[in-house]
Amino acid sequence: MKRDLDRLMAERGIDAAVVMGGVRDNPTMYYLTNGAKLSHATVIKRRGEAPVLFHASMERDEAAKSGLTTRDLGDYNFRKFIEEAQGDRLQATVLLYTRLFEELGVQGRVAFYGRREQGASYAFLRALDAALPQIEVIGEFDNDIFAVARATKDAEEVARIREVGRRVSQIMADVVRFLRRHPTANGTLIREDGSPLTVGDVKQFVRARLFENRLEDPEEMIFAIGRDAGVPHSHGEDDAPLRLGQTIVFDLFPQEAGGGYFFDMTRTFCLGYAPPEVERAYRDVLDCFNEVVAALRPGAATRRYQVMACELFEARGHPTVKSDPTTKEGYVHSLGHGLGLEIHGRPIFADVPGNEDTLQPGVVFTVEPGLYYPEQGFGIRIEDTFWLDEDGRFHNLTDFPKDLVIPVAGA
Amino acid sequence: MKRDLDRLMAERGIDAAVVMGGVRDNPTMYYLTNGAKLSHATVIKRRGEAPVLFHASMERDEAAKSGLTTRDLGDYNFRKFIEEAQGDRLQATVLLYTRLFEELGVQGRVAFYGRREQGASYAFLRALDAALPQIEVIGEFDNDIFAVARATKDAEEVARIREVGRRVSQIMADVVRFLRRHPTANGTLIREDGSPLTVGDVKQFVRARLFENRLEDPEEMIFAIGRDAGVPHSHGEDDAPLRLGQTIVFDLFPQEAGGGYFFDMTRTFCLGYAPPEVERAYRDVLDCFNEVVAALRPGAATRRYQVMACELFEARGHPTVKSDPTTKEGYVHSLGHGLGLEIHGRPIFADVPGNEDTLQPGVVFTVEPGLYYPEQGFGIRIEDTFWLDEDGRFHNLTDFPKDLVIPVAGA
Repeated sequence: MKRDLDRLMAERGIDAAVVMGGVRDNPTMYYLTNGAKLSHATVIKRRGEAPVLFHASMERDEAAKSGLTTRDLGDYNFRKFIEEAQGDRLQATVLLYTRLFEELGVQGRVAFYGRREQGASYAFLRALDAALPQIEVIGEFDNDIFAVARATKDAEEVARIREVGRRVSQIMADVVRFLRRHPTANGTLIREDGSPLTVGDVKQFVRARLFENRLEDPEEMIFAIGRDAGVPHSHGEDDAPLRLGQTIVFDLFPQEAGGGYFFDMTRTFCLGYAPPEVERAYRDVLDCFNEVVAALRPGAATRRYQVMACELFEARGHPTVKSDPTTKEGYVHSLGHGLGLEIHGRPIFADVPGNEDTLQPGVVFTVEPGLYYPEQGFGIRIEDTFWLDEDGRFHNLTDFPKDLVIPVAGA
Repeated sequence: MKRDLDRLMAERGIDAAVVMGGVRDNPTMYYLTNGAKLSHATVIKRRGEAPVLFHASMERDEAAKSGLTTRDLGDYNFRKFIEEAQGDRLQATVLLYTRLFEELGVQGRVAFYGRREQGASYAFLRALDAALPQIEVIGEFDNDIFAVARATKDAEEVARIREVGRRVSQIMADVVRFLRRHPTANGTLIREDGSPLTVGDVKQFVRARLFENRLEDPEEMIFAIGRDAGVPHSHGEDDAPLRLGQTIVFDLFPQEAGGGYFFDMTRTFCLGYAPPEVERAYRDVLDCFNEVVAALRPGAATRRYQVMACELFEARGHPTVKSDPTTKEGYVHSLGHGLGLEIHGRPIFADVPGNEDTLQPGVVFTVEPGLYYPEQGFGIRIEDTFWLDEDGRFHNLTDFPKDLVIPVAGA
């Protein structure tokens, strides 16, 4: 949570944090500016002090909505720095930041954040480090202070995620109704004109429902059938017909319109009926899901749940990433992930050395075991989003049944 | 254009280009992978050779749609590198890239691109540079090879931008019709129930039209009235009523759904009537727009058009960024910008030392003079998007009249 930032900075010996870039697709900037519509900006936070937002002059109204102390970059006259640097924008930018740092008294170990072009960042941060002896530029590679702070959510964040979850669960129900109201012919759902209903038709229906619910789908939903469902991140082919008896992996992970909080859930469906091998694998995934959820404990290392999932699947005869890290069949990914202002955040659940993530109060995360057999033409995944409250209770924020078969007319 | 990449690499002594990150909000990755739905990937292009796409195993279907040569990162078993690095993900990542570079024979000056967390990039690129004596890590700060290549569009890109422009122009017309079909009372447009129509109502109408036209609005439209119109990037207040006689700046800049090409246009409207000072300023902006457009020449330096705009406005008595770089009244921004896979690209039009951008064949750019008087409660901007073809002809891709006053019933 935001209140952890000063502690994290102290633990890591960071004297100041500098966050750069626009608010769009830049979770740390969104986090600090509360989603103000800024196309580019800089936030500087000295340890123990409130952050200061430097914004473009033209964006002063939007900057004011952040609730932060603001300063208008226009007043610094970047043109003057460009002239001083004889047209060298890199040097001019170093001059500007020298000025900003002087003004705020920034020195010591200064860490930089925000999504930007990586080559430009490398050039800028090297030049800044060389130019300013009073600062040491710090780049956190992994699990940076903002990723850690953002991993645990305060009450307002949880309320927002829960509300997105409510809408997403409802849309999932709408989709099931949409599928059920189509008749069947020759083993597929059909449209009114008798032609096959397709994955593209369903996605268009979902997009409309997302729009009506003020949700965006920047990473684009997965609605994949048959063999495509067997490749976890295959998004599905628009022209694929909806055949009965094939698995459909429907993974829906939109965010609040305007670039806010995400939700994430997956269901696997078979229209009309499920073949025996799919039923068996589905039961294995559902059992795994239930056993993992029953075993969730505050403070536990996330890795142990990945190990647990692998062991459960192996006991049922499925290959896993534990028995073969490069397997493309069986259980091929990790068990879940944190989410919030980005779809994949901390904690991670990978069972790898160095992963010390644990289930801390405030964490919001998915549990999503799956089994994939593309050569056999099917894949299965079940995913809900959970929140661990301050009192150590886990809450499932997903409100949707886990039935494999969707009954359809005429099947 | 893409065909320029090898030449640009040669001119800048770049032996290999490495592009990292997801395809979303990462224009260079989108550009190279043709919009394949990749959540994270790496493209490596040696000079004179075709790019190679390294993708997550789970995304192999989506990677195949890029049309590039692909390699499955899953086959490299990152876990093994993590174990070798004893859980240090930074070192493990260096080991992975060492392997990829060896495999492709990458050496010499290697430049890195793609939007990523800047601190992580700094840490990674420093570690890589230190670990691999056979390569020198290059970070281009500004106007990198991909920004230059992307600035000029090939026929397919122009067709896509033109199509987005067609839809955007149509939506602008729909909005004018939407406004006109509302009655007026007490100097504002009103809803059926007699309450004032608001900026939020109009935006909701526009969002629906964008959705129906398969467009996204990631940077969020500007529809700002009165004093808000006087602050160029004020997005407008949802609860503001639509008063007659006030300027409305309507700046619409969506992109193809799924994160493709942008279009950008702005109109300024007054409902019912325009006050004389607004009419005068509007004429000044329109005259400036027309004179600049008439003066466009292939190969010309973009800076000269910014100077021209400033001089035209100053001759009419307006303050400008030329007379006062920190002015918040009058003409306060630059004249235009390139656009394509990002809303603000090359060329830039700023009249600053170091800006050597010129109007090259294939360039797509906006011309958008404006005048802003927030204290007087108004702002004006007029913006069209242009394309310069290979034969040296400029094409206006915007199809919408430039009338200030929208007649409304009862006004």
